[in-house]
Amino acid sequence: MQELRQRIVLTEPEEMAAQPVSVLITGANRGLGLEMVKQMVEAPRPVTKLFACCRDPDGPRAEALQTLAKKNSNIISVVRLDATDLCSIKLCAQQVGSVVGTGGLNLLINNAGVLAKGTVQETSPEDMQHSFNTNVMGPMNIIKEFLPHLRDAVKASGMPGMSISKAAVVSISSLLGSMEALKQSYAFLPAASYRISKAALNMLTVCAAEELKKDEILFSLLHPGWVRTDMGGEEADIDAPESVQGMLSVMASLTEKQNGAFLDYKGQSIPW
Amino acid sequence: MQELRQRIVLTEPEEMAAQPVSVLITGANRGLGLEMVKQMVEAPRPVTKLFACCRDPDGPRAEALQTLAKKNSNIISVVRLDATDLCSIKLCAQQVGSVVGTGGLNLLINNAGVLAKGTVQETSPEDMQHSFNTNVMGPMNIIKEFLPHLRDAVKASGMPGMSISKAAVVSISSLLGSMEALKQSYAFLPAASYRISKAALNMLTVCAAEELKKDEILFSLLHPGWVRTDMGGEEADIDAPESVQGMLSVMASLTEKQNGAFLDYKGQSIPW
Repeated sequence: MQELRQRIVLTEPEEMAAQPVSVLITGANRGLGLEMVKQMVEAPRPVTKLFACCRDPDGPRAEALQTLAKKNSNIISVVRLDATDLCSIKLCAQQVGSVVGTGGLNLLINNAGVLAKGTVQETSPEDMQHSFNTNVMGPMNIIKEFLPHLRDAVKASGMPGMSISKAAVVSISSLLGSMEALKQSYAFLPAASYRISKAALNMLTVCAAEELKKDEILFSLLHPGWVRTDMGGEEADIDAPESVQGMLSVMASLTEKQNGAFLDYKGQSIPW
Repeated sequence: MQELRQRIVLTEPEEMAAQPVSVLITGANRGLGLEMVKQMVEAPRPVTKLFACCRDPDGPRAEALQTLAKKNSNIISVVRLDATDLCSIKLCAQQVGSVVGTGGLNLLINNAGVLAKGTVQETSPEDMQHSFNTNVMGPMNIIKEFLPHLRDAVKASGMPGMSISKAAVVSISSLLGSMEALKQSYAFLPAASYRISKAALNMLTVCAAEELKKDEILFSLLHPGWVRTDMGGEEADIDAPESVQGMLSVMASLTEKQNGAFLDYKGQSIPW
């Protein structure tokens, strides 16, 4: 961890990197989400307020997050949010609003997602619906319900341009959502319902980026790399700390030039 | 019509253009679907068997199709198919199978679709779900249920390569489903749920193209242009006969080189 911190400091001097005051992360109890929470509170300049959201904050799968939250109770609030349940999204938005007030929410990270690995022929209507609900409708409803808080952050910021210090939505997509890159990975990992949902999430993000640029809210898509998590499996390329370090660095560098962009964890642009 | 026919003959001599024996078109009672049925039966070499599918074959919106079917009862069968109803898809596939037998189905055209015009902010979860059901789940279920008949057509054909004479699925997509082209049209026509569903349909098609290339079934996406139909409105660029003439000509030219391609009605490739 110490080594990672030093690398963050080396690549992102405090005077350069954008720094949000308030951040919300969905799917924060495991994998990349949990690692983001960790790195954000352990950074030399931790965020001021971090809403770590998950479906079941009191369940056994949120224990690591709860332990981390106890150690950093001044920063982390664990909040219930189920991306497939509009009511829980509305309740979460209300709760976040009552904490951030007119300062608003600077950075919303749509990280929660599900992966089914089957081919088109193996994919059931239920798989498709579940992927669509979690990976597309979830981010869509979350964006809509949190827009007032993102707008408040723009008002409170007074800064020109776009950045995660002001107001931004970063959605975790995947190279698997790239039509252009599909041939290289389909035989190895078909994941048809996942790919379809990520292409849809990409379009949602490009629509929102275009629609809300006048409001100065930044929208970007990140591919985390192929990461050794529950979702990525043990044979993946990189570990979660490396992926998250890269993604946080890319997030900090985002400006209006990357509005609507699809980037990997190293900041490289990915074709649609 | 005479002029159109002459142009088809001029650009596609009989010895060159691929010609399917059996064709199924969804959403065949109106707009582009109905025009496809018209041109296919009025062509110098009409198809042998045409399954013209729509949600309500006995309703007032299918009257023009029924009239056309009566005039060409040796070719056209009007069959009930609701893209949002898996049971109706299964029943339709059974009915088609009993007619085509081991000859199979050569060409399946996923034409049925819905368009809601709102922005991300204006789009309700119900709009999203309806677009997803009709424009993504529909084609997915239709592809899966008709695969046995497409495979039969491959077996019956004995020809090398891929073409609509052998076995092909052409899905009607839209330039609005292109992330790359979004900025040019978003302010004028946001249609967020439609764009999201068409990006998802594009990915579904690219997945199917890659997955089923070993079975020699061709999958392509067509953008019909901006057409004066109920969906396109009165101010659109071209009329339905021009769009359909172009699309039928492009379909006839498809080979394995266009497997997974996204083309407009003039045959030009569209970026994702």
